[in-house]
Amino acid sequence: MLELRLTQAGLLKKVLESIKDLVTDANFDCSATGFSLQAMDSSHVALVALLLRSDGFEHYRCDHNISMGMNLGNMAKMLRCASDDDTVTIKADDGSDTVTFMFESPSQDKISDYEMKLMDIDSEHLGIPEAEYQAIVRMSASEFARICKDLGTIGDTGTGCPHHISLQELHLLCLFIKILNSDSMVDVLIAVIISVTKEGVQFSTKGDIGTANIICRKNTAVDKKEEATVIEMAEPVSLTFASRYLIAFTKATPLAGQVTISMSYDMPIVVEYKMETMGYMRFYLAPKIEEDEGTGPQEENVPKVGTKTKADVNPKVERKPKKIKSKEVIEIEEGNELEVEPKTKLEKIESDDESEPKVESKPEIDIKPKEEIEMDETNPQVEAKAEVETMDVE
Amino acid sequence: MLELRLTQAGLLKKVLESIKDLVTDANFDCSATGFSLQAMDSSHVALVALLLRSDGFEHYRCDHNISMGMNLGNMAKMLRCASDDDTVTIKADDGSDTVTFMFESPSQDKISDYEMKLMDIDSEHLGIPEAEYQAIVRMSASEFARICKDLGTIGDTGTGCPHHISLQELHLLCLFIKILNSDSMVDVLIAVIISVTKEGVQFSTKGDIGTANIICRKNTAVDKKEEATVIEMAEPVSLTFASRYLIAFTKATPLAGQVTISMSYDMPIVVEYKMETMGYMRFYLAPKIEEDEGTGPQEENVPKVGTKTKADVNPKVERKPKKIKSKEVIEIEEGNELEVEPKTKLEKIESDDESEPKVESKPEIDIKPKEEIEMDETNPQVEAKAEVETMDVE
Amino acid sequence: MLELRLTQAGLLKKVLESIKDLVTDANFDCSATGFSLQAMDSSHVALVALLLRSDGFEHYRCDHNISMGMNLGNMAKMLRCASDDDTVTIKADDGSDTVTFMFESPSQDKISDYEMKLMDIDSEHLGIPEAEYQAIVRMSASEFARICKDLGTIGDTGTGCPHHISLQELHLLCLFIKILNSDSMVDVLIAVIISVTKEGVQFSTKGDIGTANIICRKNTAVDKKEEATVIEMAEPVSLTFASRYLIAFTKATPLAGQVTISMSYDMPIVVEYKMETMGYMRFYLAPKIEEDEGTGPQEENVPKVGTKTKADVNPKVERKPKKIKSKEVIEIEEGNELEVEPKTKLEKIESDDESEPKVESKPEIDIKPKEEIEMDETNPQVEAKAEVETMDVE
Repeated sequence: MLELRLTQAGLLKKVLESIKDLVTDANFDCSATGFSLQAMDSSHVALVALLLRSDGFEHYRCDHNISMGMNLGNMAKMLRCASDDDTVTIKADDGSDTVTFMFESPSQDKISDYEMKLMDIDSEHLGIPEAEYQAIVRMSASEFARICKDLGTIGDTGTGCPHHISLQELHLLCLFIKILNSDSMVDVLIAVIISVTKEGVQFSTKGDIGTANIICRKNTAVDKKEEATVIEMAEPVSLTFASRYLIAFTKATPLAGQVTISMSYDMPIVVEYKMETMGYMRFYLAPKIEEDEGTGPQEENVPKVGTKTKADVNPKVERKPKKIKSKEVIEIEEGNELEVEPKTKLEKIESDDESEPKVESKPEIDIKPKEEIEMDETNPQVEAKAEVETMDVE
Repeated sequence: MLELRLTQAGLLKKVLESIKDLVTDANFDCSATGFSLQAMDSSHVALVALLLRSDGFEHYRCDHNISMGMNLGNMAKMLRCASDDDTVTIKADDGSDTVTFMFESPSQDKISDYEMKLMDIDSEHLGIPEAEYQAIVRMSASEFARICKDLGTIGDTGTGCPHHISLQELHLLCLFIKILNSDSMVDVLIAVIISVTKEGVQFSTKGDIGTANIICRKNTAVDKKEEATVIEMAEPVSLTFASRYLIAFTKATPLAGQVTISMSYDMPIVVEYKMETMGYMRFYLAPKIEEDEGTGPQEENVPKVGTKTKADVNPKVERKPKKIKSKEVIEIEEGNELEVEPKTKLEKIESDDESEPKVESKPEIDIKPKEEIEMDETNPQVEAKAEVETMDVE
Repeated sequence: MLELRLTQAGLLKKVLESIKDLVTDANFDCSATGFSLQAMDSSHVALVALLLRSDGFEHYRCDHNISMGMNLGNMAKMLRCASDDDTVTIKADDGSDTVTFMFESPSQDKISDYEMKLMDIDSEHLGIPEAEYQAIVRMSASEFARICKDLGTIGDTGTGCPHHISLQELHLLCLFIKILNSDSMVDVLIAVIISVTKEGVQFSTKGDIGTANIICRKNTAVDKKEEATVIEMAEPVSLTFASRYLIAFTKATPLAGQVTISMSYDMPIVVEYKMETMGYMRFYLAPKIEEDEGTGPQEENVPKVGTKTKADVNPKVERKPKKIKSKEVIEIEEGNELEVEPKTKLEKIESDDESEPKVESKPEIDIKPKEEIEMDETNPQVEAKAEVETMDVE
């Protein structure tokens, strides 16, 4: 029997809203530690990890570990029926194929039960190892969200797409009219470069209409604590990411005042929103490859933002192997660690045309940097293309 | 000559906004009693009755009874040009085929005249008899609106419809593209069960994604008067309605702090919004049939919400003939009463494939419960189908 | 080298938002006087003139006159990335084909550079002569915007267009589906008559659903200075304009509390928004012809609003040659004046089927009243039709 009671339904609502567009279906795992979720997005590029600690709940009863497969869209629909200050109770009987969300108004005058069918979802739990990062940035979550949105605007090529039409509407037209095929869809894989130096963090992009460079300077002398920008750095790092994932991550902004961004050359970026007392929401994303040897067509997808910096922070960095140890970023899943294969090992992997290379019978995910995967030399573009075709429109 | 002056244009704006999507064209009737309207919605399932009492107007001159046919969408367009605190004057000359709305700003610096053509609308005035109801619920209007909206979300099957697309947009695509025919339209006839017991009122629905039960407990000890939930009940009642109509009715929420819901087994539900001093807006809706004898396909449209109640109010009710007399719900149209045919009489009606069964030369409306209409046994689905096809998309 | 520094990015953002839908591409001219722009809208019916005076900038360095062609939509996109209280610096090196917008947050913690490519745009600068106007109205900018919007609603025929669908969405459907051709597009060239008398200003329109007359009375005894309505008049004037342009002009409403409207029978109307200390945004629009000799089909586009005035201001005016001299409306571009051709001269022009009659090697724009252009008598509708076909959907 499972019975979890949370006094603020608003928190659970925000959690669901922040991941439901990235992940369609996922298993919620309930144990003595807490209520957690780990899932890849549908294009298998990003990983979401959520933890709501058991001691953050008003009442937490979980007789034995249980994994409940839920459609996150439907769960979000039900939670939207709760008011933010309702008390929510998650209930499931042993062996039941349903879960019940009960919402009680503060006055106890309105009591709602929503019963949802559970799903069987195949997913192997992925151990995330304790890691060291070359640079960790802590900054205002809303500022980070604004920057990702702004750079998405500039990088957007907007080909053939009237400027007020949302991708959702485009998608609608695709679905219903079947005139547009996926080839004519706007390429939304805009590259954003995040560079960290001792002085600050720089975000850059390049689009058809021009380029953009945004620098946030290190600063702890601020009026509001959450506006601080703190840099913890062993060495400068500069990595490139697809802006659509960064933008998707920032849907978690309502969960926290600050966001923590951890980067290393041979690791996925971690974008973390800490919920005070309750736990965290973490997003992992593999960086895009910045090839220097210039493999023709691939370059189109990885625009190089001119680094002739116009402001006084120079983000030019060289790649060195130094690292700082992240003290608290990784704290669960000990004993079930993902063995991040050392580079020498990875080079032996034969990845042909499959977009998800197999790593010695491990779960098929590619949270390791793509540059380390030896790809079929005759068709180096296969993986990148697959991403474009399977992307889901927000 | 007609000249009606109302100091708050905002009230008339709200009135129009609350009915314009339900009723396209209607006759406004002006008499010494007041300015009133009575109209069926386009699918002939719901009835709207509006009364603005003459003594609620600042100035009320109506030389003789007059009926003015108006397109409610156009009337709403014109009223939207008024500011809420404008004074509005409705003027019509005898024999004229136009009506004029004059808006004066509080400072008298801006004066606007909007002249609208009148229409000839065939409509027989329907007498609504003084009735007794088995249960009357008075509750917060905004809480009722929230519940109808929430249950509409859960019951929504959403087949083939991306979740952000409004029905309006779907309709647009239907109109212009003519790819979608009405068969592929989403079935929005979600069933909502309203059950009243001495302890409270329960709203339930069942959809593809699960079930929902919302209980509002009887409570008069509240901070704000309009949050009270008052139950007046001769016997428990449980009836099923199409959620889309209930949702449409709640567009009148801005008119009143509380809503009054009156229910009996052999009567349409009445959802009433009282405008202090001015009058009321009432909506009538026939309940859906909950057949126990299980006529196959029809059951799909009438989901039975599992009544294993999870909270402490048990809405299970049996049908008994006891009634309480509604003292004030029906107060106009005496002498022109609709003879609600007793069941024995109705059973003699031969309704074949027509969606609106004729009731002894009475106006063709079916505000009587459908269960009392003897349908052609060879095609019991005809009426229900007709509703689906003629529904207008909001 | 060009370097212009403005402490409030919000002002520049508002300027761009107010013209980007009217004008696609335009040259910004930078001189010792200021940062200015003059451009026709894409249908060559309206003219926009912007001036931001050099002394309104915090820092203004412009080594020599320079003209920079920009896509206003892209420029607006970049400016939207600035916060309203950011300091914005516009920078361009001599001979460079790019312009840079630098945004600095008030705390100097966030510094953004946006670099945009410049365009080569052919445009001859048009001298606008100092003019005298028969009537000048100064009134609340937001009231004027509200009136234009309201009249646009009433005049809208709405043929075949569900009422919640924006023109943008219609346009989308046109673009992607190619089912709708321009003939089936809604005619949005709704005529609005503006009439000025000593007592006030009247705005009228006529649509399928009825007519509308709005009168704003002269009034200087107001609580808020910007609510005053001031009339300066040599003689009554009554002119007709296409509402879509007036509505487009009112996008500049956030720039100023008051709007100044200047009208004469043989001149385009001037709608001016003055930015305190900084300069102005002016819109010029040629009036529509109100032909009395009744050239059949043309009348349909120029509805005559019934002048049986229902309120106490009578806007009926006769055309007389008296004028008052506008003291400050025209103050730039001396020495480069547009020779507004006297009627006798214009009658010699041979305008065949071209929509833009040539005026003695002058730039091809028609800001003179159309009634003075002698059109090909065999096809008097050509020009009006051309406007319909080239209109861009907002």
